[in-house]
Amino acid sequence: MVLPFLADQARRHALTLIGGSLLLPGEGELLRNTCVVFSSGGEQLALYDKIHLFDGDLPDRSYHESARIQPGSQPVVLDLGDWLVGLSICYDLRFPELYRHYAALGAQLLSVPSAFTVPTGQAHWELLLRARAVENQAYVLAAAQIGRHPGGRETFGHSMIVDPWGLVVAQATNQRAAEGEVVLAELDLRRVHQVRKQLPALSHRRLY
Amino acid sequence: MVLPFLADQARRHALTLIGGSLLLPGEGELLRNTCVVFSSGGEQLALYDKIHLFDGDLPDRSYHESARIQPGSQPVVLDLGDWLVGLSICYDLRFPELYRHYAALGAQLLSVPSAFTVPTGQAHWELLLRARAVENQAYVLAAAQIGRHPGGRETFGHSMIVDPWGLVVAQATNQRAAEGEVVLAELDLRRVHQVRKQLPALSHRRLY
Repeated sequence: MVLPFLADQARRHALTLIGGSLLLPGEGELLRNTCVVFSSGGEQLALYDKIHLFDGDLPDRSYHESARIQPGSQPVVLDLGDWLVGLSICYDLRFPELYRHYAALGAQLLSVPSAFTVPTGQAHWELLLRARAVENQAYVLAAAQIGRHPGGRETFGHSMIVDPWGLVVAQATNQRAAEGEVVLAELDLRRVHQVRKQLPALSHRRLY
Repeated sequence: MVLPFLADQARRHALTLIGGSLLLPGEGELLRNTCVVFSSGGEQLALYDKIHLFDGDLPDRSYHESARIQPGSQPVVLDLGDWLVGLSICYDLRFPELYRHYAALGAQLLSVPSAFTVPTGQAHWELLLRARAVENQAYVLAAAQIGRHPGGRETFGHSMIVDPWGLVVAQATNQRAAEGEVVLAELDLRRVHQVRKQLPALSHRRLY
């Protein structure tokens, strides 16, 4: 099973692991599209069920996620001590209100594991990740599936990490999708504080 | 005065004119940062006072708008018949909740007359305009001040019009700032409907 595997990986490499998303059992015949977080001790720290389900007719194909997925209803913040991490999945990225909620709670890091398709990825992936970072003055951590999948679906890749000013500080080359590629960056809370002090937009919100 | 001038321009050229922003008198010593809309008959159709005031220390200089400006408290939608237009001004662009409010009311066009500075313009202007267009599946109309101003302030320009998929369909060259430059595009409601039908994200909102 994938959950023990993820717990074991977190333990073995001594790191916090945001695993997702995964399909887990839901009510009746339904599944949940879920992100599970493990501590470096292998304990489950948090679990987030994708709130926004994607039904639509994209240029390449149609999707009807709501036919088999049960939506989550609760935003989930992961408390890592210094860092508060807002959890989200893929299509959630199109809904700025989720990330505003996290920013209002104090999140300085937003996680968006995703499987954007090639057409929507080309059009919107980097744009929306950078916008979420800028408007919430937070880092964005965006692991992205890449490759060709059963049924002809092709995912966009371009995993990236964006800083609170909107700069892409690390990005997958997409050149070594087959053997896997690791995207690494050092996240610095001082950078968050610097941006928020210079342009304190989060303290200027007036519409809730 | 500038209001009769704008009314006269709207009448003379037989067009709806979104004039803004302007500084108009507020309570006591305060001013309002205001956008005023005139019909082709020269009638005042709508008036929006900037809600979010900018106080901050940017790389180039400090701003303390709240010291002399009285903030607006109400989003304003302009009803032009076929088109509903959400009004906003400059720094409002950093607050996605304002545009979500307009999209929920049915706006297909978002207006953001602005005076971004050069540093924040380079970093965030096009990014945030395109993100507002994409997440709200609406056209964005963004007239932008350009030039050098008293006190050494320099504004970024790059007036642009963005379509509901996030494509920049027209943009100022910034080459003829001194003599003025007109940015023109044809806006097509069918394009809005097409994008919203293909990817009906506005009907998938779950957090309010």
